[in-house]
Amino acid sequence: MYTLIKKDGLAKRGRFETVHGTIETPVFMNVGTAGVIKGGISSVDLRKIKCQVELSNTYHLHVKTGDKLIKKYGGLHKFMNWDGPILTDSGGFQVFSLSSLRKIKEEGVYFSSHVDGRKIFMGPEESMQIQSNLGSTIAMAFDECAPNPSTKDYIQKSVDRTTRWLERCKVKMNELNSREDTVNKHQMLFGINQGGTYNDIRIEHAKVISEMDLDGYAIGGLAVGESHEIMYDVIEHVTPYLPEEKPTYLMGVGTPVNIVEAVARGVDFFDCVYPTRNGRHGHAYTSEGKLNILNKKFELDERPLDEACGCEACQNYSRAYLRHLLKAKEMLGMRLISMHNLYFYNQMMEDIREAIEKGEFEAYRKKINETFAKK
Amino acid sequence: MYTLIKKDGLAKRGRFETVHGTIETPVFMNVGTAGVIKGGISSVDLRKIKCQVELSNTYHLHVKTGDKLIKKYGGLHKFMNWDGPILTDSGGFQVFSLSSLRKIKEEGVYFSSHVDGRKIFMGPEESMQIQSNLGSTIAMAFDECAPNPSTKDYIQKSVDRTTRWLERCKVKMNELNSREDTVNKHQMLFGINQGGTYNDIRIEHAKVISEMDLDGYAIGGLAVGESHEIMYDVIEHVTPYLPEEKPTYLMGVGTPVNIVEAVARGVDFFDCVYPTRNGRHGHAYTSEGKLNILNKKFELDERPLDEACGCEACQNYSRAYLRHLLKAKEMLGMRLISMHNLYFYNQMMEDIREAIEKGEFEAYRKKINETFAKK
Repeated sequence: MYTLIKKDGLAKRGRFETVHGTIETPVFMNVGTAGVIKGGISSVDLRKIKCQVELSNTYHLHVKTGDKLIKKYGGLHKFMNWDGPILTDSGGFQVFSLSSLRKIKEEGVYFSSHVDGRKIFMGPEESMQIQSNLGSTIAMAFDECAPNPSTKDYIQKSVDRTTRWLERCKVKMNELNSREDTVNKHQMLFGINQGGTYNDIRIEHAKVISEMDLDGYAIGGLAVGESHEIMYDVIEHVTPYLPEEKPTYLMGVGTPVNIVEAVARGVDFFDCVYPTRNGRHGHAYTSEGKLNILNKKFELDERPLDEACGCEACQNYSRAYLRHLLKAKEMLGMRLISMHNLYFYNQMMEDIREAIEKGEFEAYRKKINETFAKK
Repeated sequence: MYTLIKKDGLAKRGRFETVHGTIETPVFMNVGTAGVIKGGISSVDLRKIKCQVELSNTYHLHVKTGDKLIKKYGGLHKFMNWDGPILTDSGGFQVFSLSSLRKIKEEGVYFSSHVDGRKIFMGPEESMQIQSNLGSTIAMAFDECAPNPSTKDYIQKSVDRTTRWLERCKVKMNELNSREDTVNKHQMLFGINQGGTYNDIRIEHAKVISEMDLDGYAIGGLAVGESHEIMYDVIEHVTPYLPEEKPTYLMGVGTPVNIVEAVARGVDFFDCVYPTRNGRHGHAYTSEGKLNILNKKFELDERPLDEACGCEACQNYSRAYLRHLLKAKEMLGMRLISMHNLYFYNQMMEDIREAIEKGEFEAYRKKINETFAKK
């Protein structure tokens, strides 16, 4: 289902066929936590801002809305009126970062909902069941995202358990995909490489999961507090041990520079809340670098956020007006800057793909590094 | 500038020519408090939801953003990228309802900003200056919106002062419109009829201001706590004394039933925060009446808010999804329902105009009364 179209250095230009359409890679997935992108952005808007893949959070949909209700409705695609690919995470990351009173056992994790304190159990089978109920295009394996830093001993034990959980995920998904009433019988499974910052554990784990013939492979447990240099070093060590003919997904990353640097090391898929979260706070990504719209120097600035941008915000509104909206705490300001930022990211991925095709990726990588260098 | 095209009973079908385009009446003005409609709705969206006139609040723009800055930018039209008509209120209503420590004198009102407590003075000249800085199409006279109930003696004194203020508004606007650097030299002025619920004072005041040859006349100081019956009674008594060949504007009103009832009594212009404020709380206006989307019975409802509606929300999203968005406190839910409600109101006004043209207004009035009757 993944076709490697072109390589430029280690950078891969690929195409991933799914039951919900083709994904051109490298791709940035637009994060819609609870089946909706924050900042008032609809699935109709997603088409306009060049989104290819929507990413929803299993944990939030399970705890807040209920995946059973969404299944009864006909699945997440129908619910949110989005017919393109959807990737759901496993819920693991939120279980480890949001919930309290968690207890990790061989069978899974016992935790309290961050919404109402209700006791919940989630293990590989539960995560697969929830993601099957949602009917996403790609489901993520249930793993432990260990805290950084952790001892090598803890990481080794955690990774071994994550491998056992992955085997259970695979078995459960096969079973679910064969059921008559399953929303998406062609749901795919991505495994997740873990190992903290211990490259030897990472490599060993990458070898083991690569043998399991999954639809794609993610690098998890990064961008959790370690330096960018360490993150790049881990990626560099791990990608050679992940199958080149499958997509590689770097979870929760990152800035424009992080993305080109990871593409340069062979990564295909990305997701991050930066474009929307920063957008809601008035930080815009532009072809001239990052811009804080709340800065007083913009109060009479008639220019759009980015003169090179084709998004609805840049085609219609000035920095001065957007600054006013942000200062007045008007939703429209958050919406327009969030949309602009997602458009910027999606456009950047398009430019990356084009650069790889033309064999000009190194020049593009340099440009992004220079544009977003701290001044 | 106002042409009376057709009458059906007392209901008027008119056309009002302005420097920013033609307004077909009866019309509902869409309220954008701080130069933006709440709920993340942009000027681009306004076109899609059939908005003819945007209404901005002088007080909010003065206190929060600064009208001088907006003038320097080139006026409110350019600032918010809206080239259609804009009506600005005088600021008086907010001075009386939001600010604290106010003192009413012959020269105007001394009050403290509700944002930062800063002491501000606003009189007729200041209000006209601010509205001229904004460059709105139609400016409203600075008046006192007296509390309900007030003694007849207080109302009489207040109305007399409001008349003197109106004369000062007219003088000031003429002076401002003749200045070289004025944003909109064709700014129009609407006077405001006051008098509480005392019909004799209302009628006397209507006679006096009708002599002043203004561009339009508003009925103010209603929908401030009195019953609908009293409000209708006041309108019925006052409209015969306001010029038929000028637009009549009922300020801050109201529900669909209030609107058809006021149209039936000769009113042309309306504005109200209900569609957006109620929208943000999950209350939708539909061709089958009002609907509270948070109701559990909608959790699997695949139908749009209103099957007869052509808005973006109804064309794309179900009640079940909108309920989920509202419950998850996602901006998109507030945006979609607010847009739907404004579309409903704007469409209703279009239907009212068509009904008057066809001589079928009574039937339409009956239909709206039945649809929104409390069940």
